[in-house]
Amino acid sequence: MQIDILTLFPEMMQGTLDHSILKRAKEKEQFDYRFINFRNYSDNKHEKVDDYPYGGGAGMVLTAQPIFDAVQAVKSEQETKPRVILMCPQGEKYTQQKAEELAKENHLIIICGHYEGYDERIRDHVVTDEISIGDYVLTGGEIGALAVIDSVVRLIPDVLGNTDSAVEDSFSTGLLEHPHYTRPADFRGMKVPEVLLQGNHAKIDNWRKKEALRRTLIRRPDLLHTVSLTKTDQELLDEVKREEKLL
Amino acid sequence: MQIDILTLFPEMMQGTLDHSILKRAKEKEQFDYRFINFRNYSDNKHEKVDDYPYGGGAGMVLTAQPIFDAVQAVKSEQETKPRVILMCPQGEKYTQQKAEELAKENHLIIICGHYEGYDERIRDHVVTDEISIGDYVLTGGEIGALAVIDSVVRLIPDVLGNTDSAVEDSFSTGLLEHPHYTRPADFRGMKVPEVLLQGNHAKIDNWRKKEALRRTLIRRPDLLHTVSLTKTDQELLDEVKREEKLL
Repeated sequence: MQIDILTLFPEMMQGTLDHSILKRAKEKEQFDYRFINFRNYSDNKHEKVDDYPYGGGAGMVLTAQPIFDAVQAVKSEQETKPRVILMCPQGEKYTQQKAEELAKENHLIIICGHYEGYDERIRDHVVTDEISIGDYVLTGGEIGALAVIDSVVRLIPDVLGNTDSAVEDSFSTGLLEHPHYTRPADFRGMKVPEVLLQGNHAKIDNWRKKEALRRTLIRRPDLLHTVSLTKTDQELLDEVKREEKLL
Repeated sequence: MQIDILTLFPEMMQGTLDHSILKRAKEKEQFDYRFINFRNYSDNKHEKVDDYPYGGGAGMVLTAQPIFDAVQAVKSEQETKPRVILMCPQGEKYTQQKAEELAKENHLIIICGHYEGYDERIRDHVVTDEISIGDYVLTGGEIGALAVIDSVVRLIPDVLGNTDSAVEDSFSTGLLEHPHYTRPADFRGMKVPEVLLQGNHAKIDNWRKKEALRRTLIRRPDLLHTVSLTKTDQELLDEVKREEKLL
């Protein structure tokens, strides 16, 4: 997968891309990325990329021309049909399902804005996807782009050492994850649940499923509307509801 | 505001903290941050911070001891009562309201995990808030911590140059932002809406409100359930619904 990142601040992203799974995936040529500073495409003699908004108001707006031309330049170099993603608070809310969809592509262009926003013509004519990573305001698109890149790259086949790990993660199953415990079994008087110490794997699986259901029920009941539960899951959920005095 | 970040990978975050508004806020002493590598608090002779999960399964789990002791060390240095935030997919979904709440604090400790997860005793005994930045799986807590820090610091008084800018941003009003346009008025045949060029400010305000309502209605109708609309807003929304053939 090739990811081309249009940003005025590549240094904001470099450190994250240079570590952990992203670093290894790049070294193993499972993905590659490039920073494109769209300021270099500005045909303004001062290399300006922003201007005052029509109609007045606070903040500056990113102009159409540098981004149009930078995206065009990237596209014309390659045979691919890239998805062109705009990071913005007005976008589609990013989810694990969207990450899975993007992980199947072979070329992404991600546009990171700053200032007050983008000239609307960029949205209308250049972009294929507008993505928001959540309902909060960030200074620019870079942190959001990192979230997209990290979540997508870890889904590329063989990027994660242990493929089980990606499958069991929260949201991949549609439920929040069950609690985890590791040694010591007694840490300063705080104990690990007995069932996890006894080695009965059927019982452990049952406990984990039940606690994943409990956590989801209490913290994120909205997720239960979209997940498909087996009959056993449903029985476990009813058991949890009784224990939590919700039934 | 003091932010202490517990992480094994400070280099993943440094670049973002060194730029843009976060950089300026630190220079103006509006906030300060510190990285605490909790590996340094491990009492294991190999400085281990993770171990196999009880009950089996893929992935490693962060052990309780280094995080308990690192948080205790930070707390014992200072007179503050810090919020202790765990970045994790099972947490409360992060929103602008939560950012506003955290912006009133004077000391945050943010714990960034990696691997499969945290020993549950960390959640139960150390943490005051569990935060998820969205329903997608990231490799570690660092990108989420950057989102929290950026969104919180920009709300600290006087951090943003133009205070209007923070107020009008998406989610601050409860609606998505209206479209923005800047020069030229005709870019390669794509034109700016006439109303924005005519200088009638009442009409411009009306157009912007209406387009913010339209965008919210079409893209994020869920937000309309929580926002409080004036009578005029409601009339504009009905107008939009008729135009969109939704009424």
